[in-house]
Amino acid sequence: MATMTLTQERVSAAYAALGSGDQAQIDEYWDPNMRWLVPGSHQLAGWYEGRDAFLGFMKRVGQLSDNSFVMTPVTILLNDEYSGDVTHNLGWRSGAKKDTNSLYEKLDIDVIHVLRWRNGRVIEARGAIFGDGATQFNQFWSQVGPEGARAPG
Amino acid sequence: MATMTLTQERVSAAYAALGSGDQAQIDEYWDPNMRWLVPGSHQLAGWYEGRDAFLGFMKRVGQLSDNSFVMTPVTILLNDEYSGDVTHNLGWRSGAKKDTNSLYEKLDIDVIHVLRWRNGRVIEARGAIFGDGATQFNQFWSQVGPEGARAPG
Amino acid sequence: MATMTLTQERVSAAYAALGSGDQAQIDEYWDPNMRWLVPGSHQLAGWYEGRDAFLGFMKRVGQLSDNSFVMTPVTILLNDEYSGDVTHNLGWRSGAKKDTNSLYEKLDIDVIHVLRWRNGRVIEARGAIFGDGATQFNQFWSQVGPEGARAPG
Amino acid sequence: MATMTLTQERVSAAYAALGSGDQAQIDEYWDPNMRWLVPGSHQLAGWYEGRDAFLGFMKRVGQLSDNSFVMTPVTILLNDEYSGDVTHNLGWRSGAKKDTNSLYEKLDIDVIHVLRWRNGRVIEARGAIFGDGATQFNQFWSQVGPEGARAPG
Repeated sequence: MATMTLTQERVSAAYAALGSGDQAQIDEYWDPNMRWLVPGSHQLAGWYEGRDAFLGFMKRVGQLSDNSFVMTPVTILLNDEYSGDVTHNLGWRSGAKKDTNSLYEKLDIDVIHVLRWRNGRVIEARGAIFGDGATQFNQFWSQVGPEGARAPG
Repeated sequence: MATMTLTQERVSAAYAALGSGDQAQIDEYWDPNMRWLVPGSHQLAGWYEGRDAFLGFMKRVGQLSDNSFVMTPVTILLNDEYSGDVTHNLGWRSGAKKDTNSLYEKLDIDVIHVLRWRNGRVIEARGAIFGDGATQFNQFWSQVGPEGARAPG
Repeated sequence: MATMTLTQERVSAAYAALGSGDQAQIDEYWDPNMRWLVPGSHQLAGWYEGRDAFLGFMKRVGQLSDNSFVMTPVTILLNDEYSGDVTHNLGWRSGAKKDTNSLYEKLDIDVIHVLRWRNGRVIEARGAIFGDGATQFNQFWSQVGPEGARAPG
Repeated sequence: MATMTLTQERVSAAYAALGSGDQAQIDEYWDPNMRWLVPGSHQLAGWYEGRDAFLGFMKRVGQLSDNSFVMTPVTILLNDEYSGDVTHNLGWRSGAKKDTNSLYEKLDIDVIHVLRWRNGRVIEARGAIFGDGATQFNQFWSQVGPEGARAPG
């Protein structure tokens, strides 16, 4: 395989493939042996080993947030081996009211995902959060509500 | 029913009943409609509504810690309606080595449980942790290991 | 000195003495060698060694909150050596608007202070917070605002 | 001024200038009006407005860590406007023993700093931490020791 130059377009296309759910597209950008590290100490945090585990994580995010996440690209950084996409993430817990101000129900953070590429596909990735967003990420993904009620199931 | 005076002995007996797993003993001290609030934002945190939910929590603690918890009573406070037991809790995650120093694998905290009693039984309870133990409680019960590995299932 | 029985009234009087700022009253309830442990990992957390250090902490709380704290007693627990006062604490950062919903500007928590008494005076004390209040306590006393602005010196 | 292409060498040189403490070198890479966002909720967290404030932060880091930090570059990402340096940070609190395992005394994290450049100089920067490093960053920069002792000063 010829060397494939990593471009901002290719990074965007990788995320679009993820969003499409189309297996062939996903396979073009995401290595089956990839791993992904979700920041924090909440229920979703830690290393997902393998693409299937990672896709399971993405699905779980959708369920817990009622697919409410709006991810707005800010900028994409590159070198020969890595990409870094700065993204603004806005989302709500499943069942939360859109006008809630609770950090346990609404997430509003800037993140960066650093993706390592090999042969044109992502082989490893890690996320990190700016400001005090890591604390808020833990609150948002916790299973307790503003008054301490445990989330169902 | 005549008024039952709340004593340190009765508080200790309530915990002993819990530990026994004997349903009749549990029933003597813990109201079926009781609720319990576990501090923090980790997987076990929040309100457990009903005695069955609370007993399920206790069982889960045992599973996740391989029944390693040593709870040492420090003192018991009382009034007509409430008890508060200060307790030193020492425990390890299931699978952790006993000589680990990781806050993700070993817990060593002082806590207080404030129990509200009605007709001689616990009807509501809340735990709280001294020092920076609440952060450590979140680390210990998180599903990530010292290097970010996700705990199995 | 004859043994002094610890009563709920005496505990309340100790806090009233603190609030009065009157040195003679403070001296009646708070031992000069007392120490106090503030929960969390924020700028005010940790052990205050000696009554002067503790009074300095109380003064700092007043400055940082513009004396806005409303502390509502819930119940007081006792035995021969310890008291435990459950208290609802509501307060705002200095400069914050009263209708803010930000956990970085408004604090709304239930706490317990466990006081150890000797010869009628408090010799040691530790605070602990119910629910996920310890996280919120760290946010409230942090020196960052909702958007990450650092609090002035 | 002609457009200056952002290179990995230029990013490295900017950090070297910082480390040198030489004002002329610093002035070549860091805009006087720059701002820097330190992640977390600890005593050093938040936005530093202006280069002088940022340099004050760097000096404070040196004091609190006894200049023990070892920062190992991992990779540098780029585009026309931004750089992102992934760095492994290892450091100890001033006074801590080098063989300590306490998260309150030793820091061992991977971070990324995203720098925004204008006219060849850094105008804005934000840090973010991988894994559960944000929690550990808060513990490390907290003013409490492993047993809750408050740090001097």
